[in-house]
Amino acid sequence: MDHERIAVLAHEKFPDRAKTALGVMRYGDQTVRAVLDRDRAGDRVSDHAPDLDDAPIVASFADAHAAADGDLDALYIGIAPIGGGFDESWRGDVEAAIEAGCDVVSGLHYFLNDDEGLAALADEHGVDLVDVRKPDDDLTVATGASGDVDADVLLTVGTDCSVGKMTASLEIVAAARERGIDAAFVPTGQTGIMIAGWGNPVDRVVSDFAAGAVEDMLVEVGDDHDLLVVEGQGSIVHPAYSAVTCGILHGAMADGLVLCHAAGREAVHGYESFDLPPIAEYVDLYEGLAGPVHEAEVVAGAVNTKDVDDDEAAAEAVADFGDAAGVPAADPVRHGAGDVVDAALDAGVGRGGSVE
Amino acid sequence: MDHERIAVLAHEKFPDRAKTALGVMRYGDQTVRAVLDRDRAGDRVSDHAPDLDDAPIVASFADAHAAADGDLDALYIGIAPIGGGFDESWRGDVEAAIEAGCDVVSGLHYFLNDDEGLAALADEHGVDLVDVRKPDDDLTVATGASGDVDADVLLTVGTDCSVGKMTASLEIVAAARERGIDAAFVPTGQTGIMIAGWGNPVDRVVSDFAAGAVEDMLVEVGDDHDLLVVEGQGSIVHPAYSAVTCGILHGAMADGLVLCHAAGREAVHGYESFDLPPIAEYVDLYEGLAGPVHEAEVVAGAVNTKDVDDDEAAAEAVADFGDAAGVPAADPVRHGAGDVVDAALDAGVGRGGSVE
Repeated sequence: MDHERIAVLAHEKFPDRAKTALGVMRYGDQTVRAVLDRDRAGDRVSDHAPDLDDAPIVASFADAHAAADGDLDALYIGIAPIGGGFDESWRGDVEAAIEAGCDVVSGLHYFLNDDEGLAALADEHGVDLVDVRKPDDDLTVATGASGDVDADVLLTVGTDCSVGKMTASLEIVAAARERGIDAAFVPTGQTGIMIAGWGNPVDRVVSDFAAGAVEDMLVEVGDDHDLLVVEGQGSIVHPAYSAVTCGILHGAMADGLVLCHAAGREAVHGYESFDLPPIAEYVDLYEGLAGPVHEAEVVAGAVNTKDVDDDEAAAEAVADFGDAAGVPAADPVRHGAGDVVDAALDAGVGRGGSVE
Repeated sequence: MDHERIAVLAHEKFPDRAKTALGVMRYGDQTVRAVLDRDRAGDRVSDHAPDLDDAPIVASFADAHAAADGDLDALYIGIAPIGGGFDESWRGDVEAAIEAGCDVVSGLHYFLNDDEGLAALADEHGVDLVDVRKPDDDLTVATGASGDVDADVLLTVGTDCSVGKMTASLEIVAAARERGIDAAFVPTGQTGIMIAGWGNPVDRVVSDFAAGAVEDMLVEVGDDHDLLVVEGQGSIVHPAYSAVTCGILHGAMADGLVLCHAAGREAVHGYESFDLPPIAEYVDLYEGLAGPVHEAEVVAGAVNTKDVDDDEAAAEAVADFGDAAGVPAADPVRHGAGDVVDAALDAGVGRGGSVE
């Protein structure tokens, strides 16, 4: 999956409810030539998200194709309805993309390759339908090989789901590269995979193979970089998703952990009868659980303050979290992840070579 | 899946390498009318396993059918080659069973239903091929509903895989019933499912649904019993399988945990470069990890002493483990699980009603 010029479908949801589109536009190497949103056709990306590279917003794939002078490699599905289904109102755009010779990349639960009409059309036009949420068939159990990769490994872990682990991971990679470190992002979820162009969707892998799916990625790229930043998922005390978190924790055999938190979050997102335990307890749980497989300390905190209005209150939330966790902390979006990388380096993680 | 009279296939492996066959014969409600083992045809079960109900050992399904006077409901595959494949030398027996109107039950990785020849033959004869390792299609994420079931929940957790969690669970159910408690076994692996006739194979469920697969079972049977004993899997610090363990831990929302151990085990089975941490650390890890979702204490230990020669050494191993874990302990096979049930009752777990 290696696309240079793409259009991103975000009908009726750009920008605020188009998390995948924003992730790809902010962090992907692909150039976004047009955004499809029939509700905002005629506007430009800069009207709504001034920090992103600008592009026209159009009503259909045909308009995107015209706006890009016909020079597109792929259409990315940049939104997901609740439940992850395929919205039939998108079919015309997807068909038009296929007929124009474009691959179509999707992170939906609904697999495009299982849609007989789209699969036949893609076959006819020689393009790929890429379902990033469909795990490879050849995944298997972990062997413990992650401990042998040359690169140092940082893993983002969370106090909950939806606290910004993917964003923190990508900002850490960017900040590490600014410091001259050969760092790479290891994606474990659909948006991360669409951004990076590769990866295993660990939440879709059978639970016996969850750790193995992470190991598979680390072994693939571990000798090519000095630092791998693995995108964590969920939380180790999440009532539904902790299996994914635990598989990633032991599959990554990380050298350091970055504990991610959303400022103000006090209960599990979507499971509000479950209170989050104290921050210090997370540190003990993650370190205690990692240790018997591979020793790892929490080296820094990453606090998502997007719901905090002013900079002063955000700085206070970050400082409070750092105090509670006993490590340096930052908001990787508001402040950049430089402090996180420096804290990792201070702990001996970041320049490759084993710290076992 | 409700079979009364069955034959069990265990070619060339009965009894020592036929773990599934032995489990079904020891704990299942089904009457085993014959065992298929072409290497021991003519012997009887009592020649090799005197503690089991006796039955003839025969060379083929045809001989089993004759020995059972044609009165069989099903053929169970009671062995698994390394890798879980289907051994072609079994095909004649499986076909003969189908043609005789028997269901065929298998816990292999290889799904009988995906074998076109067998599937067509089963369809023709109106029998079911039951692949117990194939998860239901309708599983989904946990909601936290396990905390609301009326029954008390005990979960067996382990210091490693293959330490006897299934056996401990079944012996706990038996001992609880002897004390007049309406107890039920909740299976999470293929042998347990073949014994119980129902259940979700949690290691085969996508990791996002691992906790949900346990919750699904507890909600199904939780109001019909006073005590549910959930079969645990793996270990929370297993380099490959911890995701399964963690999903079961949070999906079960247990009221008490029984820590299972194999006497003498010092490193992870099959992963010998990973030492097992001290027993007391397991207690802290399991309790610490369970707590934020549902408080649970380790109430007893179950020690597998099958590799310990004499009773005195076994008793010593059990006592040492109990001291290390700080709870009463027993070998459920050598001593029965009465002490384990009594310890659970002392901790307030076993007679239904919430202990939250």
